Amino acid sequence: MKICQVEKTLVSTNRIKEMGHRPLLVVKEKGGSRSIAVDAVGCVTGDWVICVGSSAAREAAGSKDFPSDLTIVGIIDHWSED
Amino acid sequence: MKICQVEKTLVSTNRIKEMGHRPLLVVKEKGGSRSIAVDAVGCVTGDWVICVGSSAAREAAGSKDFPSDLTIVGIIDHWSED
Amino acid sequence: MKICQVEKTLVSTNRIKEMGHRPLLVVKEKGGSRSIAVDAVGCVTGDWVICVGSSAAREAAGSKDFPSDLTIVGIIDHWSED
Amino acid sequence: MKICQVEKTLVSTNRIKEMGHRPLLVVKEKGGSRSIAVDAVGCVTGDWVICVGSSAAREAAGSKDFPSDLTIVGIIDHWSED
Amino acid sequence: MKICQVEKTLVSTNRIKEMGHRPLLVVKEKGGSRSIAVDAVGCVTGDWVICVGSSAAREAAGSKDFPSDLTIVGIIDHWSED
Repeated sequence: MKICQVEKTLVSTNRIKEMGHRPLLVVKEKGGSRSIAVDAVGCVTGDWVICVGSSAAREAAGSKDFPSDLTIVGIIDHWSED
Repeated sequence: MKICQVEKTLVSTNRIKEMGHRPLLVVKEKGGSRSIAVDAVGCVTGDWVICVGSSAAREAAGSKDFPSDLTIVGIIDHWSED
Repeated sequence: MKICQVEKTLVSTNRIKEMGHRPLLVVKEKGGSRSIAVDAVGCVTGDWVICVGSSAAREAAGSKDFPSDLTIVGIIDHWSED
Repeated sequence: MKICQVEKTLVSTNRIKEMGHRPLLVVKEKGGSRSIAVDAVGCVTGDWVICVGSSAAREAAGSKDFPSDLTIVGIIDHWSED
Repeated sequence: MKICQVEKTLVSTNRIKEMGHRPLLVVKEKGGSRSIAVDAVGCVTGDWVICVGSSAAREAAGSKDFPSDLTIVGIIDHWSED
C-alpha cells in the first residue's frame, strides 16, 4: 500500500454512475505525482493515509464492481516525513 | 486514479473485435508519458479527466470482458495545474 | 493502454505450454524500456500499436487463462512521435 | 516479487474493518520509496523480505477479500545489498 | 512481459505454505532493479527470460491460488543487450 497525504477533495459532476457519491480525494505520495483516491474511512486535508491499489481497491471501496484502482483504507496515527 | 488531460482522439482501424467502437483518446498525465484511454463519459480535447486503471478499467468501460486497462470515468470540474 | 512501436519478433523455444504458438513481439514505449507483447492483431516491424496490460491482457490474448500481461490489441493508423 | 527491508511497524487505529488486526509494516525497496505491507510470515525490523503485489497479495494475506496490494510472503535467508 | 536476466537462486526458509517448493530466482531487468520471480520453465544463471506479471503470474506459476506477481514463462533463444 502507498503512504499518501490528503491534499483536497475533488469535484467531478460528470462521472459514470457506477462511481455513485463516494468522496474522491486528491492524494500525493512523497516525491510522487498526485493521484485520486476513493475515501473509505473519512479523512481530512493533511491526513497521512494508507492507499490500496490493484484489484483490492475495488472491494475496499464498497463492492467488487466499484471502479476504483486506489482506495484509502486507513489513517496513519503518526507519520513523520523524512 | 490518474489525473490526465485529453489530447486528441485516436484512430485504429485494425483492432480486435472485443474493442468494438468505443472511442479511444490520447491522454497525458502531468509530467508523464502519453497513454490511450477508453472514453466512458464523453470528453473533449483539453478536458482534465479521472482515469481508472488496473482490473477496474474493464468493467468501467462497459463490461467485464472489455480489453481496457485505462478508462476515463469522470471529468474534473475545475483543475489548475501547478 | 500504452503506445508502443514494434521492434522485432522474439523466439522462445523453451516456454510453458499455456503460451501456445501466439507470436511474441519486442515492443518499445517512447522513452521507455523494451517489453514483450503477445500479438493479437498481426503487426509488422515499425508499426505503432496499442498495448493493453493488467488483467485485460489475458482475455485479449485469446482466453482468460492465457499468461499475458501485455497484448497488442490494435494498430494505430497514424502516429507521429513528438 | 519485490525485495524489501522491514523498517518498522505502522499504527492505524482508524481503518476499514476488512483489514482486521493483521500487522502492517513499513518496508523499503532499495532505492525506492516506502510502502506498507501486510505481514503474513512474522518479520522483525531489519529483515529482508519477499513482497508480493498485484491481485496475488490479497489471498496471500489470508483471504481473497483482504484489501492488500502488498503482502510479505517470505523472509530471505541471506541478502547482501550491493 | 518483461525481459530479465537470471542472476541467482534465492533461499527463503521461512515462507507462507502456499508458495510450496517452487524455485525462486533473482532476476534483473536491464537498467531496472532486482526482482524475485517464480521459475516455471527451468532456468540457469545468465539466461535471458520472459517474465509475466499482473494476475497472469499466478496461473503461470501453476495454479490460480499461487501467490506470485512475477513468473518466468519462457527462455529467450538469443538476446543481445543493447
